[in-house]
Amino acid sequence: MGYENYVDRMREIADIRYATAVLQWDQETYMPEAGADGRSRQIATLSELAHSRFTDPAMGDLVSRLRSSGSTDPMATRNLDLTAYDFDQASRLPAAFVRRMSETVSKAFQAWVTARSENNFNRFAPILETLVTLKKEEAALLGFEGHPYNALLNQYERGCTTDLLDKIFGALRGPLQQLIDRIGTRPQVDNAIFRQYFPETDQWAFSLDMLKLMGFDTSAGRQDKSAHPFTTNFSSRDVRITTRIDENDLSYMTWSTIHELGHALYEQGLPESQYGLPLGEYASLSIHESQSRLWENNVGRSLAWSRNFLPLLLQYFPMQFHKTNPDQLYRAANRVEPSLIRTEADELTYHFHVLIRYEIEKSLIGGDLSVNDIPDAWAAGYKRYLGIEVPDNSRGCLQDVHWSHGSFGYFPTYSLGSLYAAQFFAAAAHEIPDLSVRIEKGEYHLLLDWLRKKVHMHGRFFTSEELCREVTGEGINIGHFMQYVNDKYRFIYAFQPEEAAI
Amino acid sequence: MGYENYVDRMREIADIRYATAVLQWDQETYMPEAGADGRSRQIATLSELAHSRFTDPAMGDLVSRLRSSGSTDPMATRNLDLTAYDFDQASRLPAAFVRRMSETVSKAFQAWVTARSENNFNRFAPILETLVTLKKEEAALLGFEGHPYNALLNQYERGCTTDLLDKIFGALRGPLQQLIDRIGTRPQVDNAIFRQYFPETDQWAFSLDMLKLMGFDTSAGRQDKSAHPFTTNFSSRDVRITTRIDENDLSYMTWSTIHELGHALYEQGLPESQYGLPLGEYASLSIHESQSRLWENNVGRSLAWSRNFLPLLLQYFPMQFHKTNPDQLYRAANRVEPSLIRTEADELTYHFHVLIRYEIEKSLIGGDLSVNDIPDAWAAGYKRYLGIEVPDNSRGCLQDVHWSHGSFGYFPTYSLGSLYAAQFFAAAAHEIPDLSVRIEKGEYHLLLDWLRKKVHMHGRFFTSEELCREVTGEGINIGHFMQYVNDKYRFIYAFQPEEAAI
Repeated sequence: MGYENYVDRMREIADIRYATAVLQWDQETYMPEAGADGRSRQIATLSELAHSRFTDPAMGDLVSRLRSSGSTDPMATRNLDLTAYDFDQASRLPAAFVRRMSETVSKAFQAWVTARSENNFNRFAPILETLVTLKKEEAALLGFEGHPYNALLNQYERGCTTDLLDKIFGALRGPLQQLIDRIGTRPQVDNAIFRQYFPETDQWAFSLDMLKLMGFDTSAGRQDKSAHPFTTNFSSRDVRITTRIDENDLSYMTWSTIHELGHALYEQGLPESQYGLPLGEYASLSIHESQSRLWENNVGRSLAWSRNFLPLLLQYFPMQFHKTNPDQLYRAANRVEPSLIRTEADELTYHFHVLIRYEIEKSLIGGDLSVNDIPDAWAAGYKRYLGIEVPDNSRGCLQDVHWSHGSFGYFPTYSLGSLYAAQFFAAAAHEIPDLSVRIEKGEYHLLLDWLRKKVHMHGRFFTSEELCREVTGEGINIGHFMQYVNDKYRFIYAFQPEEAAI
Repeated sequence: MGYENYVDRMREIADIRYATAVLQWDQETYMPEAGADGRSRQIATLSELAHSRFTDPAMGDLVSRLRSSGSTDPMATRNLDLTAYDFDQASRLPAAFVRRMSETVSKAFQAWVTARSENNFNRFAPILETLVTLKKEEAALLGFEGHPYNALLNQYERGCTTDLLDKIFGALRGPLQQLIDRIGTRPQVDNAIFRQYFPETDQWAFSLDMLKLMGFDTSAGRQDKSAHPFTTNFSSRDVRITTRIDENDLSYMTWSTIHELGHALYEQGLPESQYGLPLGEYASLSIHESQSRLWENNVGRSLAWSRNFLPLLLQYFPMQFHKTNPDQLYRAANRVEPSLIRTEADELTYHFHVLIRYEIEKSLIGGDLSVNDIPDAWAAGYKRYLGIEVPDNSRGCLQDVHWSHGSFGYFPTYSLGSLYAAQFFAAAAHEIPDLSVRIEKGEYHLLLDWLRKKVHMHGRFFTSEELCREVTGEGINIGHFMQYVNDKYRFIYAFQPEEAAI
């Protein structure tokens, strides 16, 4: 039967892609440095193989034929439609181009690691230049309407455009700035409790306990360490997350682990029966990020979570927390302060970190900014939006791994994810009785089950916007995020109610 | 140019094979259990892909054409000759047969795990029956002269035959038996120092120190833990070994780690420039095993090694070793005692473990023994050669993983490896002044450099026998092994000189 044939082909390609993911995971966790050259080759070969198998004209013909024969199964129909779309997109990139990109990316990653550790942008600039040229070429190959950056945005978030982002950031900027300014007039929250000495082995053990308590299935996943935390998976039954530990700051590991947990719970919740098919995949990057942000912020930085987890923190770190109450923990976890590092930013200033990167990427791809001018543009952005000076490139434009991976157009999905997270969490709070009381009691499965049913099990059936309507009854609406942060920070920074109303 | 084309094709296939090796390494070290199904799929897909690319008729044509055009570069010529041989061998097995074998092997492994843990040979017998039938079919497909088992032996050790093995084991048996019997009349060596409590973290740290001190390049490899120690590699610059730690027996980890170190040093010494080509591969399984055995036994179980490493052992385990002198350590590491488990056997009785398996495999493939009679044949062999009773099949014919992997003809390479190890080490001792004094001083690089030059750098240029002649000036000669063990055990078990002369 034709559909079976399609499924077999898709699964074989998935096998190759997941194998590539294993090689990449190993590269970032355990691979010895001298293994880098061989690994670049191996990843490039597998990527090319998966690409050429997927773009095989016979694949396109098969899908066309099956679509025109008209299946009555809505899931089969959706799989075929999505594959047809993916096939069209992938076919626009010639195999030679894909190989060149993948080889460049492997080298770029090594160069970025060196550049960042040596705080030397010039070590990264030449290969970044090559990457930007390749990305422009990619945009041209993919095709676009309006800005060329749209072609790259569309890869991570189907239908996303500079127009849409300009509108969303335009609407967010004012109210966010106002709230941050208002917070700036209030006494700062004390987060010194996190800046004590927390031994690595204890942090590691705490993180594993926390993962289990919050719903991570350890029989179908694991945590390791890497320079830059990430989540990957090799099926929905093998989901890997990584974390990074700073012995002088407990907060980094804690909320980074919960963030990756959110990604991992999503992957573990995707339908196993759809292995290798679009419906076995996540809906979009912004929806993926909505899951990580929801767990990190809406759950992990709530008063209910602080109440639930303080006892375990006390068990692991009695000396450090014996004078802390849940309210202090909650406040410390929500300190707002313009800062240099995106991954350590609070929920409010975070969007400006994204906005700065969005503007730089848009200019780079549009040809309005050269690679050598990135450090200046970076500094100007941080000055303008966050009012701070960038002391060096390691803490500036070299801080993120994304460009070294060839990911341009990725950052905006982080902001979209936060917005969806707030909107989804508001819906969950509406539908699950006493949600915060349940969280306080450690009953995370109620929320997880809700997300499994509302979001995870659908895989890629819906677009971000469709899914948002399915889950919340309306399209993306920044009002939910603003409501959430206004409520939260009014309490934490003790505004007068009328002052906080925006 | 044609040769370049050949090199590119070979390297692409190597990329897929090494990627498969990464997946297998992860499966045995870090993969969560629920990941098993996806991983089997992924490994099967990649294996089939590599096989079909290699057996592509275009590959055969290319190699034929290049060979008949007559290169003047001896390395290129040798690469092409070896690839022609490999191509011919691989082409004899139809894709459908390869798939049937690989599916049977997957099931056989699961059945073996169950059978061994339940001590129930009947759980394994039916699938083993199927495997033996398939292996007979494989022998017929591959072709052979003389005994059908020769076809299987030849896969692991080119040119190896039952005639050769019968001759070698025939010559070894008598003198070995005599030596073991003689040892049996002497007071037993005390190895209680190893049977104390050695915390896992300390053993782990000691093993890493030991690896470095003995020459392992940690920038081009790493050690992890697995249920069964193994060595694998993804290029000569990324060599992975694993170990297993028993907190109540230091000796298991110590010599198993040194054994894998020997394999790893060989892989790290293969010429990087020959990545993906036959000359970048090891010479044969017996030569691989000669390297592991040489480091494990000829080096690691020597008095010189004990003198060199006792201070480090004392540093890690002061309580356990404060009353031990190098002589006692040396003796304890060389206790001879007939036992049930091959992987824990001493250097002498080990060959009988191999001989028993060799005789059973030969009879199975020759049709002189049925699968159901294996337990009896096993018991008879252990009774006859080692004088011990086999209490159950878990500690008998179910102990090794090999048959469940479809590996028949593999075991004999272990004995050949020991014999080559002794012969190579004798040559090294002849050529490196004061070798044992150098080892005692921790100067392992002298031996390593010698092996690099004499063995490693040649890759697969020579056959085992040719390499042996290159290194030692003669073909395989069991006299070197017998000389080595006679000298060693005469000292350890304090024979009268005339009594030991065999």
